[in-house]
Amino acid sequence: MSELAMRAEKLDAADDLRGKRDAFVLDDVIYLDGNSLGALPAVVPGRVEDVVRRQWGELRIRSWEESGWWTAPERIGDRIAPLVGAAPGQIVVGDSTSVNVFKALVGAVRMAGEGRDEILVDATTFPTDGYIAQSAARMTGCTLRPVAPAQVPGALGDRTAAVLLNHVDYRTGRLHDLPALTAAVHAAGAYVVWDLCHSAGALPVGLDEHGVDLAVGCTYKYLNGGPGSPAYLYVRRDLQGRFDSPLPGWNSHAEPFGMRSGYEPAPGALRGRVGTPDILSMLALEAALEVWDGVPVEAVRAKSLALTDFFLECVAAYVPEGRVECLTPVPHAERGSQIALRCDGAGDVMKRLVERGVVGDFRAPDVLRFGFTPLYVGFADVERAARVLAQTLG
Amino acid sequence: MSELAMRAEKLDAADDLRGKRDAFVLDDVIYLDGNSLGALPAVVPGRVEDVVRRQWGELRIRSWEESGWWTAPERIGDRIAPLVGAAPGQIVVGDSTSVNVFKALVGAVRMAGEGRDEILVDATTFPTDGYIAQSAARMTGCTLRPVAPAQVPGALGDRTAAVLLNHVDYRTGRLHDLPALTAAVHAAGAYVVWDLCHSAGALPVGLDEHGVDLAVGCTYKYLNGGPGSPAYLYVRRDLQGRFDSPLPGWNSHAEPFGMRSGYEPAPGALRGRVGTPDILSMLALEAALEVWDGVPVEAVRAKSLALTDFFLECVAAYVPEGRVECLTPVPHAERGSQIALRCDGAGDVMKRLVERGVVGDFRAPDVLRFGFTPLYVGFADVERAARVLAQTLG
Repeated sequence: MSELAMRAEKLDAADDLRGKRDAFVLDDVIYLDGNSLGALPAVVPGRVEDVVRRQWGELRIRSWEESGWWTAPERIGDRIAPLVGAAPGQIVVGDSTSVNVFKALVGAVRMAGEGRDEILVDATTFPTDGYIAQSAARMTGCTLRPVAPAQVPGALGDRTAAVLLNHVDYRTGRLHDLPALTAAVHAAGAYVVWDLCHSAGALPVGLDEHGVDLAVGCTYKYLNGGPGSPAYLYVRRDLQGRFDSPLPGWNSHAEPFGMRSGYEPAPGALRGRVGTPDILSMLALEAALEVWDGVPVEAVRAKSLALTDFFLECVAAYVPEGRVECLTPVPHAERGSQIALRCDGAGDVMKRLVERGVVGDFRAPDVLRFGFTPLYVGFADVERAARVLAQTLG
Repeated sequence: MSELAMRAEKLDAADDLRGKRDAFVLDDVIYLDGNSLGALPAVVPGRVEDVVRRQWGELRIRSWEESGWWTAPERIGDRIAPLVGAAPGQIVVGDSTSVNVFKALVGAVRMAGEGRDEILVDATTFPTDGYIAQSAARMTGCTLRPVAPAQVPGALGDRTAAVLLNHVDYRTGRLHDLPALTAAVHAAGAYVVWDLCHSAGALPVGLDEHGVDLAVGCTYKYLNGGPGSPAYLYVRRDLQGRFDSPLPGWNSHAEPFGMRSGYEPAPGALRGRVGTPDILSMLALEAALEVWDGVPVEAVRAKSLALTDFFLECVAAYVPEGRVECLTPVPHAERGSQIALRCDGAGDVMKRLVERGVVGDFRAPDVLRFGFTPLYVGFADVERAARVLAQTLG
């Protein structure tokens, strides 16, 4: 057994989160794609079966009240809240991330008011955020300006209405400085929208602590909610009264069953709801969130950094010099929970890795992405993944 | 046995759709609320279990390709298409009805182009359509004008950009004249968006035949897709190239995995997609649609009218004169698949009906709604429901 394999054994033995692996359905595959689709929590299948067979099949329409369907968006929002550092009553679950980016960004521009007609968007963003930001700008009479996150402070001005930023870059795994960038946006009198897709569930976000205005995120990566599970929208409590949604569906009405022709927005986070929530996906997510019971996100962050450090160490030891180049920043303060390696023929390499039981993903044109989900990835997995990568490249 | 009960037995014996009841999970309750939440098709629980345990739990990320997750929105759209009279390639499934109303209405206004700045909306519409229409008008610089559907032809003009109409009124069950109203809107040079929530799966719609421009609908009523199952968007083939969505998420990009910063819309119906589809809800819907195999929607319509006719006859025979007033039009050409009865103390009456095993619903302030879903409601159910109603009122 190599020295690194022995180290991995010791690290696993000392890992407080190790037992959490049993809360997931896993096999011999080393699954390093939880940053794209989280593994299945063991509690989910039984819960979904109950939702389908009993709640829908037997109670039918009564379940909107008796099974808590109607209040699921805000109830599950409150379950996500502590994972992103938010007090209750500020998050609703529903719709896709793209739709929530639209709500948040239009909402932010409307808060900024007259005279502010520029939206800044992370130029390295996941594409959908940029496309939706373009539409939000067009529909609010704003100009859209793509800027690298580090350049945002210098680009802010008294015409800036809103800034859309990613907490962690989907491609490189770079973690941006949420407290400093939020403070800079506020100093310019603008509003910030953070996309938490690649950070929530992997590291502390501290929405309330850092005074973030609005945030969105998906739930199918580190939150393990299942394929296409609904996204969420955070609106800071003191801004909720001014949140003017571009998608004022009946679910966000102050009295949804009054069936009134005039729209009157509900108070609080409910104002971010739109139409009828997709209950099957939503209640699968609610069950999936139970794996977080008793897990402080700080412990997840500590293990995540240990995993990515160890992976980089194993790659350096096993992979011949010059075959891969790490795109992810080495300083902890700039690293999310994934490692991106540039590599010639990355598409083909990933195919062979998957065949050998190491699942990461490929991002065109030449990036291998490996996500490290501390709830179910261990150090021995990491060592083996680096070893198989070296063999594949060798 | 009363004469009406005997008639019911004969009608059930002669009913070609009678066997379809076995395709659903039902009990002794007479479920007349399928116009709100369709009953559970028997095929759904097993399919959902496979999606959760095998597709998500075992194949994980590979399912986006291997289990056909990625193409589900357009594949399921094509499954709905024949039920609403559409050729393939014009419908995508995803998002809520409210979100799809927003896409369709903004898309319609953009097709109408410069100089047309008025949106007409059904003044009796389900509230969410009106709220969303107000937002679409505000964000496209249009004026919103609520008009009763019958007054639409007279309200059209050369400033009309788009008209949003409900095929069947959610409250009264009135069926509007889709062919005539569509033709009137077209004669004025405007575009029409039809909301099919209360008609799809209950009667022939004929989208292609009548040249409808855009349409939306939910799938959890007569299509039995489950609570909050995703809605759909129809864009007529020859308009797809001009459909300019206000929600251009990465799923509607011509090359979604190219991860390009510039947006280039996909050709065809795909252009109506937005973000990552909610797979659990979507594949439950796909399974639910199998109950339609071999069922012509014309046969469903014939039985639906026979059911509502028979219900009105039974109510007239059993319920004391003056206790209820029918709000649903008597002529078949103006009737959907529900009967709305105005009744003093309707909320309390519905509570007692439910206790006695007859499930309809109550709409404030004084309406009892009964939905008749021909795939699983029989004539004996109808007779019993009217009898229990009479006892409850007696």
